Amino acid sequence: MARALEVVGERWTLLVVRDAFYGVRRYNDFLVHLGSPRAVLAARLQTLTAEGILEKRRYQEAPPRDEYVLTDRGIELWPVLRALGLWGREHFTESRPLRTFRHATCGTQEELGPYGKCPACGAVVPVPDIEMLPGPGLDPDPADPVSRALLRPKRLLTPIETDPV
Amino acid sequence: MARALEVVGERWTLLVVRDAFYGVRRYNDFLVHLGSPRAVLAARLQTLTAEGILEKRRYQEAPPRDEYVLTDRGIELWPVLRALGLWGREHFTESRPLRTFRHATCGTQEELGPYGKCPACGAVVPVPDIEMLPGPGLDPDPADPVSRALLRPKRLLTPIETDPV
Repeated sequence: MARALEVVGERWTLLVVRDAFYGVRRYNDFLVHLGSPRAVLAARLQTLTAEGILEKRRYQEAPPRDEYVLTDRGIELWPVLRALGLWGREHFTESRPLRTFRHATCGTQEELGPYGKCPACGAVVPVPDIEMLPGPGLDPDPADPVSRALLRPKRLLTPIETDPV
Repeated sequence: MARALEVVGERWTLLVVRDAFYGVRRYNDFLVHLGSPRAVLAARLQTLTAEGILEKRRYQEAPPRDEYVLTDRGIELWPVLRALGLWGREHFTESRPLRTFRHATCGTQEELGPYGKCPACGAVVPVPDIEMLPGPGLDPDPADPVSRALLRPKRLLTPIETDPV
Protein backbone atom coordinates (compact mmCIF):
# COMPACT_ATOMS: atom_id res chain seq x y z
CA MET A 1 0.00 0.00 0.00
CA ALA A 2 2.87 2.37 0.73
CA ARG A 3 3.98 1.96 -2.88
CA ALA A 4 0.47 2.60 -4.15
CA LEU A 5 0.36 5.78 -2.08
CA GLU A 6 3.68 6.96 -3.47
CA VAL A 7 2.00 6.83 -6.86
CA VAL A 8 -1.53 8.05 -6.22
CA GLY A 9 -1.48 9.30 -2.62
CA GLU A 10 -2.14 12.91 -3.39
CA ARG A 11 -5.42 14.67 -3.73
CA TRP A 12 -4.98 16.23 -7.18
CA THR A 13 -3.62 12.98 -8.58
CA LEU A 14 -6.73 11.04 -7.64
CA LEU A 15 -8.98 13.86 -8.84
CA VAL A 16 -7.28 13.73 -12.25
CA VAL A 17 -7.84 9.96 -12.32
CA ARG A 18 -11.47 10.43 -11.28
CA ASP A 19 -12.01 12.91 -14.10
CA ALA A 20 -10.41 10.46 -16.54
CA PHE A 21 -13.06 7.89 -15.51
CA TYR A 22 -15.70 10.57 -16.16
CA GLY A 23 -14.39 10.89 -19.72
CA VAL A 24 -12.25 14.01 -19.37
CA ARG A 25 -9.21 13.63 -21.67
CA ARG A 26 -7.85 17.05 -22.54
CA TYR A 27 -5.60 19.37 -20.57
CA ASN A 28 -7.98 22.33 -20.79
CA ASP A 29 -10.95 20.23 -19.75
CA PHE A 30 -9.11 18.92 -16.65
CA LEU A 31 -8.11 22.48 -15.92
CA VAL A 32 -11.57 24.06 -16.01
CA HIS A 33 -13.20 21.14 -14.21
CA LEU A 34 -10.66 20.68 -11.42
CA GLY A 35 -9.68 24.29 -10.95
CA SER A 36 -6.16 23.14 -10.10
CA PRO A 37 -3.11 25.32 -10.60
CA ARG A 38 -1.68 24.78 -14.12
CA ALA A 39 1.72 23.64 -12.86
CA VAL A 40 0.11 21.09 -10.52
CA LEU A 41 -2.05 19.66 -13.30
CA ALA A 42 0.88 19.40 -15.72
CA ALA A 43 3.01 17.67 -13.08
CA ARG A 44 0.24 15.21 -12.17
CA LEU A 45 -0.45 14.33 -15.82
CA GLN A 46 3.26 13.71 -16.31
CA THR A 47 3.54 11.47 -13.21
CA LEU A 48 0.41 9.52 -14.11
CA THR A 49 1.74 8.96 -17.63
CA ALA A 50 5.19 7.92 -16.33
CA GLU A 51 3.56 5.45 -13.91
CA GLY A 52 1.51 3.87 -16.68
CA ILE A 53 -1.85 4.99 -15.32
CA LEU A 54 -2.63 7.38 -18.16
CA GLU A 55 -1.54 7.08 -21.77
CA LYS A 56 -0.84 10.15 -23.88
CA ARG A 57 -2.39 10.13 -27.35
CA ARG A 58 -1.86 12.72 -30.08
CA TYR A 59 -5.26 13.83 -31.39
CA GLN A 60 -4.22 16.84 -33.45
CA GLU A 61 -1.00 17.62 -35.31
CA ALA A 62 -1.08 21.35 -36.03
CA PRO A 63 -0.71 22.62 -33.42
CA PRO A 64 0.21 19.35 -31.62
CA ARG A 65 -2.32 18.41 -28.97
CA ASP A 66 -2.46 15.31 -26.77
CA GLU A 67 -5.20 13.69 -24.79
CA TYR A 68 -4.84 11.45 -21.75
CA VAL A 69 -6.63 8.14 -21.54
CA LEU A 70 -6.69 5.60 -18.70
CA THR A 71 -4.63 2.43 -19.24
CA ASP A 72 -5.72 -0.95 -17.88
CA ARG A 73 -3.61 -0.24 -14.79
CA GLY A 74 -5.49 3.03 -14.38
CA ILE A 75 -8.91 1.46 -14.91
CA GLU A 76 -8.12 -0.99 -12.10
CA LEU A 77 -8.13 1.96 -9.71
CA TRP A 78 -11.91 2.16 -10.01
CA PRO A 79 -12.62 0.12 -6.83
CA VAL A 80 -10.39 2.51 -4.88
CA LEU A 81 -12.21 5.60 -6.16
CA ARG A 82 -15.62 4.05 -5.72
CA ALA A 83 -14.84 3.03 -2.12
CA LEU A 84 -13.57 6.54 -1.39
CA GLY A 85 -16.65 8.10 -2.95
CA LEU A 86 -19.05 5.96 -0.95
CA TRP A 87 -17.17 6.68 2.26
CA GLY A 88 -17.23 10.42 1.54
CA ARG A 89 -20.93 10.37 0.76
CA GLU A 90 -21.73 8.38 3.89
CA HIS A 91 -19.81 10.66 6.21
CA PHE A 92 -19.57 14.11 4.69
CA THR A 93 -22.24 15.05 2.17
CA GLU A 94 -25.52 14.69 4.07
CA SER A 95 -26.45 11.67 1.94
CA ARG A 96 -27.21 13.73 -1.17
CA PRO A 97 -25.07 12.00 -3.76
CA LEU A 98 -23.47 14.11 -6.47
CA ARG A 99 -23.46 11.21 -8.90
CA THR A 100 -24.90 7.74 -8.98
CA PHE A 101 -23.73 4.69 -10.91
CA ARG A 102 -25.69 1.83 -12.39
CA HIS A 103 -25.34 -1.12 -14.72
CA ALA A 104 -25.99 0.28 -18.20
CA THR A 105 -26.61 -2.97 -20.03
CA CYS A 106 -29.16 -4.76 -17.85
CA GLY A 107 -31.80 -2.04 -17.76
CA THR A 108 -31.92 -1.59 -13.99
CA GLN A 109 -32.57 1.73 -12.26
CA GLU A 110 -30.90 0.53 -9.05
CA GLU A 111 -27.53 1.83 -7.98
CA LEU A 112 -24.44 -0.36 -7.97
CA GLY A 113 -23.58 -1.82 -4.58
CA PRO A 114 -20.43 -0.98 -2.64
CA TYR A 115 -18.37 -3.61 -4.42
CA GLY A 116 -19.52 -2.72 -7.91
CA LYS A 117 -22.12 -5.46 -7.98
CA CYS A 118 -25.36 -4.87 -9.86
CA PRO A 119 -28.25 -5.43 -7.42
CA ALA A 120 -30.52 -6.45 -10.31
CA CYS A 121 -28.48 -9.04 -12.22
CA GLY A 122 -25.73 -9.81 -9.68
CA ALA A 123 -22.83 -9.14 -12.07
CA VAL A 124 -19.68 -7.34 -10.99
CA VAL A 125 -20.02 -4.66 -13.65
CA PRO A 126 -17.03 -3.94 -15.93
CA VAL A 127 -16.10 -0.25 -15.82
CA PRO A 128 -17.12 0.50 -19.46
CA ASP A 129 -20.62 -0.83 -18.68
CA ILE A 130 -21.14 1.57 -15.77
CA GLU A 131 -23.49 4.47 -16.45
CA MET A 132 -22.99 7.64 -14.44
CA LEU A 133 -26.00 9.84 -13.67
CA PRO A 134 -26.27 13.22 -11.97
CA GLY A 135 -27.42 12.92 -8.36
CA PRO A 136 -29.59 15.24 -6.25
CA GLY A 137 -26.56 16.92 -4.64
CA LEU A 138 -25.17 18.19 -7.94
CA ASP A 139 -25.34 21.87 -8.97
CA PRO A 140 -27.93 21.83 -11.79
CA ASP A 141 -26.49 24.93 -13.48
CA PRO A 142 -22.70 24.82 -13.31
CA ALA A 143 -20.50 27.47 -14.92
CA ASP A 144 -17.91 25.39 -16.72
CA PRO A 145 -18.57 23.36 -19.90
CA VAL A 146 -17.16 20.11 -18.49
CA SER A 147 -19.51 20.15 -15.50
CA ARG A 148 -22.36 20.93 -17.90
CA ALA A 149 -21.42 17.94 -20.08
CA LEU A 150 -21.37 15.76 -16.95
CA LEU A 151 -25.00 16.66 -16.16
CA ARG A 152 -26.07 14.21 -18.86
CA PRO A 153 -26.06 10.49 -18.09
CA LYS A 154 -23.03 8.85 -19.70
CA ARG A 155 -20.91 5.72 -19.64
CA LEU A 156 -17.65 5.86 -17.72
CA LEU A 157 -14.53 6.22 -19.91
CA THR A 158 -16.41 7.49 -22.99
CA PRO A 159 -15.16 10.98 -23.91
CA ILE A 160 -17.25 13.89 -22.67
CA GLU A 161 -19.13 15.89 -25.23
CA THR A 162 -18.99 19.58 -24.42
CA ASP A 163 -21.45 21.97 -26.00
CA PRO A 164 -20.07 24.17 -28.78
CA VAL A 165 -19.11 27.59 -27.40
CA MET B 1 -15.17 11.90 -3.60
CA ALA B 2 -13.63 15.36 -3.70
CA ARG B 3 -14.70 15.83 -0.08
CA ALA B 4 -13.25 12.46 0.90
CA LEU B 5 -9.97 13.47 -0.72
CA GLU B 6 -9.91 16.76 1.15
CA VAL B 7 -9.92 14.66 4.31
CA VAL B 8 -7.72 11.68 3.48
CA GLY B 9 -6.17 12.54 0.10
CA GLU B 10 -2.60 12.78 1.28
CA ARG B 11 -0.04 10.02 1.52
CA TRP B 12 0.97 10.38 5.17
CA THR B 13 -2.65 10.64 6.25
CA LEU B 14 -3.57 7.29 4.74
CA LEU B 15 -0.38 5.71 6.07
CA VAL B 16 -1.33 6.82 9.60
CA VAL B 17 -4.79 5.31 9.07
CA ARG B 18 -3.23 2.10 7.74
CA ASP B 19 -1.01 1.83 10.81
CA ALA B 20 -4.05 2.37 13.04
CA PHE B 21 -5.66 -0.67 11.38
CA TYR B 22 -2.47 -2.60 12.11
CA GLY B 23 -2.88 -1.75 15.82
CA VAL B 24 -0.46 1.16 16.13
CA ARG B 25 -1.87 3.66 18.65
CA ARG B 26 0.93 5.74 20.13
CA TYR B 27 2.73 8.75 18.73
CA ASN B 28 6.19 7.22 19.10
CA ASP B 29 5.11 3.98 17.48
CA PHE B 30 3.67 5.81 14.46
CA LEU B 31 6.89 7.81 14.34
CA VAL B 32 9.34 4.89 14.28
CA HIS B 33 7.19 2.82 11.95
CA LEU B 34 6.32 5.51 9.39
CA GLY B 35 9.55 7.45 9.54
CA SER B 36 7.57 10.63 8.90
CA PRO B 37 8.78 14.04 10.01
CA ARG B 38 7.50 14.79 13.55
CA ALA B 39 5.61 17.91 12.51
CA VAL B 40 3.86 16.04 9.68
CA LEU B 41 2.79 13.22 11.99
CA ALA B 42 1.48 15.62 14.65
CA ALA B 43 -0.48 17.56 12.03
CA ARG B 44 -1.98 14.41 10.49
CA LEU B 45 -3.02 13.02 13.89
CA GLN B 46 -4.68 16.33 14.68
CA THR B 47 -6.57 16.45 11.36
CA LEU B 48 -7.67 12.83 11.64
CA THR B 49 -8.94 13.47 15.17
CA ALA B 50 -10.74 16.67 14.12
CA GLU B 51 -12.42 14.82 11.23
CA GLY B 52 -13.65 12.06 13.53
CA ILE B 53 -11.51 9.31 11.96
CA LEU B 54 -9.31 8.81 15.02
CA GLU B 55 -10.28 9.27 18.66
CA LYS B 56 -7.74 10.44 21.21
CA ARG B 57 -7.70 8.47 24.47
CA ARG B 58 -5.66 9.27 27.57
CA TYR B 59 -3.84 6.14 28.67
CA GLN B 60 -1.44 7.63 31.22
CA GLU B 61 -1.79 10.66 33.50
CA ALA B 62 1.75 11.44 34.73
CA PRO B 63 3.13 12.47 32.36
CA PRO B 64 -0.06 12.76 30.26
CA ARG B 65 0.02 10.45 27.23
CA ASP B 66 -2.68 9.83 24.62
CA GLU B 67 -3.25 7.07 22.17
CA TYR B 68 -5.18 7.25 18.89
CA VAL B 69 -7.83 4.71 18.04
CA LEU B 70 -9.94 4.39 14.88
CA THR B 71 -13.59 5.46 15.19
CA ASP B 72 -16.38 3.74 13.27
CA ARG B 73 -15.96 6.36 10.56
CA GLY B 74 -12.28 5.44 10.42
CA ILE B 75 -12.92 1.71 10.33
CA GLU B 76 -15.17 2.23 7.32
CA LEU B 77 -12.09 3.32 5.38
CA TRP B 78 -10.89 -0.30 5.30
CA PRO B 79 -12.30 -1.07 1.83
CA VAL B 80 -10.44 1.97 0.46
CA LEU B 81 -7.12 0.86 1.96
CA ARG B 82 -7.61 -2.75 0.95
CA ALA B 83 -8.43 -1.79 -2.65
CA LEU B 84 -5.35 0.44 -2.76
CA GLY B 85 -3.17 -2.31 -1.31
CA LEU B 86 -4.35 -4.88 -3.83
CA TRP B 87 -3.83 -2.46 -6.70
CA GLY B 88 -0.32 -1.65 -5.47
CA ARG B 89 0.56 -5.30 -5.10
CA GLU B 90 -0.79 -6.14 -8.54
CA HIS B 91 1.10 -3.39 -10.32
CA PHE B 92 4.18 -2.49 -8.32
CA THR B 93 5.54 -5.17 -6.00
CA GLU B 94 6.30 -8.12 -8.27
CA SER B 95 3.45 -10.08 -6.67
CA ARG B 96 5.32 -10.72 -3.41
CA PRO B 97 2.80 -9.47 -0.86
CA LEU B 98 4.09 -7.74 2.26
CA ARG B 99 1.07 -8.84 4.26
CA THR B 100 -1.86 -11.12 3.70
CA PHE B 101 -5.30 -11.08 5.30
CA ARG B 102 -7.65 -13.89 6.16
CA HIS B 103 -10.81 -14.64 8.08
CA ALA B 104 -9.65 -15.37 11.64
CA THR B 105 -12.79 -17.07 12.92
CA CYS B 106 -13.58 -19.67 10.26
CA GLY B 107 -10.23 -21.48 10.28
CA THR B 108 -9.37 -20.94 6.62
CA GLN B 109 -5.83 -20.46 5.31
CA GLU B 110 -7.10 -18.76 2.16
CA GLU B 111 -6.65 -15.05 1.63
CA LEU B 112 -9.61 -12.66 1.63
CA GLY B 113 -10.88 -11.75 -1.82
CA PRO B 114 -10.75 -8.24 -3.28
CA TYR B 115 -14.03 -7.23 -1.68
CA GLY B 116 -13.25 -8.55 1.78
CA LYS B 117 -15.13 -11.77 1.20
CA CYS B 118 -13.87 -14.97 2.80
CA PRO B 119 -13.35 -17.56 0.01
CA ALA B 120 -14.01 -20.39 2.47
CA CYS B 121 -17.25 -19.36 4.22
CA GLY B 122 -18.47 -16.59 1.88
CA ALA B 123 -18.88 -13.97 4.63
CA VAL B 124 -17.91 -10.35 4.14
CA VAL B 125 -15.54 -10.35 7.10
CA PRO B 126 -15.92 -7.60 9.74
CA VAL B 127 -12.64 -5.73 10.25
CA PRO B 128 -12.03 -7.02 13.82
CA ASP B 129 -12.25 -10.60 12.51
CA ILE B 130 -9.51 -10.08 9.93
CA GLU B 131 -6.16 -11.66 10.76
CA MET B 132 -3.06 -10.09 9.26
CA LEU B 133 -0.04 -12.28 8.49
CA PRO B 134 3.44 -11.42 7.26
CA GLY B 135 3.85 -12.11 3.54
CA PRO B 136 6.89 -13.28 1.55
CA GLY B 137 7.82 -9.74 0.51
CA LEU B 138 8.32 -8.52 4.09
CA ASP B 139 11.76 -7.88 5.59
CA PRO B 140 12.14 -10.76 8.10
CA ASP B 141 14.52 -8.82 10.35
CA PRO B 142 13.39 -5.19 10.56
CA ALA B 143 15.16 -2.63 12.72
CA ASP B 144 12.27 -0.92 14.49
CA PRO B 145 10.19 -2.52 17.27
CA VAL B 146 6.84 -1.82 15.58
CA SER B 147 7.83 -3.64 12.39
CA ARG B 148 9.11 -6.50 14.57
CA ALA B 149 5.76 -6.67 16.40
CA LEU B 150 4.00 -6.77 13.03
CA LEU B 151 5.93 -9.89 11.99
CA ARG B 152 3.60 -11.92 14.19
CA PRO B 153 0.11 -12.77 12.92
CA LYS B 154 -2.45 -10.51 14.61
CA ARG B 155 -6.00 -9.30 14.33
CA LEU B 156 -6.59 -5.89 12.81
CA LEU B 157 -7.32 -3.12 15.34
CA THR B 158 -5.91 -4.99 18.35
CA PRO B 159 -3.03 -3.03 19.87
CA ILE B 160 0.47 -4.10 18.82
CA GLU B 161 2.63 -5.74 21.45
CA THR B 162 6.20 -4.53 21.15
CA ASP B 163 9.00 -6.47 22.78
CA PRO B 164 10.43 -4.97 25.97
CA VAL B 165 13.56 -2.95 25.19
